[in-house]
Amino acid sequence: MEREQALLIVKRQLTEQRYEHTLGVVETAVKLAKRYGADVKKAELAAIFHDYAKFRPVDEMKQLILAHNMPNDLLAYNSELWHAPVGAYLVQTEAGIDDPDVLDAIRYHTSGRAGMTLLEKTIYLADYIEPGRKFPGVEEVRRLAEEDLNRALLQAVQNTITFLLGKRQLIYPDTIHMYNSLVREVKGEMER
Amino acid sequence: MEREQALLIVKRQLTEQRYEHTLGVVETAVKLAKRYGADVKKAELAAIFHDYAKFRPVDEMKQLILAHNMPNDLLAYNSELWHAPVGAYLVQTEAGIDDPDVLDAIRYHTSGRAGMTLLEKTIYLADYIEPGRKFPGVEEVRRLAEEDLNRALLQAVQNTITFLLGKRQLIYPDTIHMYNSLVREVKGEMER
Repeated sequence: MEREQALLIVKRQLTEQRYEHTLGVVETAVKLAKRYGADVKKAELAAIFHDYAKFRPVDEMKQLILAHNMPNDLLAYNSELWHAPVGAYLVQTEAGIDDPDVLDAIRYHTSGRAGMTLLEKTIYLADYIEPGRKFPGVEEVRRLAEEDLNRALLQAVQNTITFLLGKRQLIYPDTIHMYNSLVREVKGEMER
Repeated sequence: MEREQALLIVKRQLTEQRYEHTLGVVETAVKLAKRYGADVKKAELAAIFHDYAKFRPVDEMKQLILAHNMPNDLLAYNSELWHAPVGAYLVQTEAGIDDPDVLDAIRYHTSGRAGMTLLEKTIYLADYIEPGRKFPGVEEVRRLAEEDLNRALLQAVQNTITFLLGKRQLIYPDTIHMYNSLVREVKGEMER
C-alpha cells in the first residue's frame, strides 16, 4: 500500500492530535530504519498504522481480544495495552495489510516482548521519541537513538518500568521480557 | 523440629555473619507472624532454614536444579536466586523438614511469586528488614511493616526491582508476578 493511501485510511481513525503524533512516528521510524538497516517501506507502513485502534471503545477491544485468540491475560492489565494487538488484527482485516512483519511491529509496539525484531524495535523506539513526545527522560533516549538502537530501547523500557513502579501500576510480563532480552543483547555486544 | 536442634543443623551450613543474619530473620519473622496472624512455629522454622543452601557451590546448585525438576529458567538468571529452591529441596532431604508450607516459604524467599501465602510473605519481609540489614530504603519498609504487611512487601519488591533496573541486571519474572499480585491485593484492600 502506498503512503498517501495508508495515511488517508488511518487519518479517519484518529483525532487530529493523534494523527500529528503518527506523522512524527512515521518520520522518526523512517530515519531509524535507514540508520539501523531495517526495511524502510515496512517501517513506514507499520508506523502509519501503529495506533489504528487507539480510539476503539474498550468494550469492542475486549470482545476482539476474546474472539480472536489474542493473549487473554491482557484483559487483566491496563487497557492502554489493548490497542496494539487489536490494531494488528484490524489493520489486517479492515485495511488489508498482510505483511506479518508489519503486523508484529504494530502488535508489540506498546508491551514490547522478548527477542524483538529490528522492525519491532524501530517502531517501539520511534513511538517513544517522535518529536512531539515531551516527558522526563525522552531527551536521553533521543540521544542514545543516534548511537545505539539497543541501548536506546533499554533506556526507554527502563524509564517505562520505573514510571509504572512509581505509580504502583501493573507491569505486563512481556515488558519485563523485553527488558531482560535487551539486557542480554547489550551484554552480548559488550563481550564481543 | 525444636528450635535449638534446627539452629544447630543450620549453623554448620553458614558463615558466622550469615548465621547472625539468620538469627535476625528468626526474631523478625516471629514478631511479624504474631502481628499478622501467621503460624509462629512454622515462621520460626522457615526463618531458621531459609538460607540453608546459601553457601553451596554454584555447580552443585545447578545440578540439583536440573536433577529435581526445579524451574529450569532459573539457570538463565542470577545464581543468587538459586539457593532458595535448592534450599527447600535440601532442607527436606537433609534435615527432614516435610511441611510444605515451610518449604514453600524457603523456596520463594528470594524471587517471591504471585499469590504468596501469609507465611511466604512473613519470611520474605523478615529477610528484607531484619535488624542487620542496612541498605537504602530499608527504614521505610521497617516502618510500613509495623502497619501493613502488603504495603511493606510492595515497597520492598519495588525497591528490589528499582535496584536491579539501575544496575541493568535481569529481573526474574516471578518477582514481577509478586509485584503485580501485591498491587492488586493493595488496590483490593483500598476498595473494601
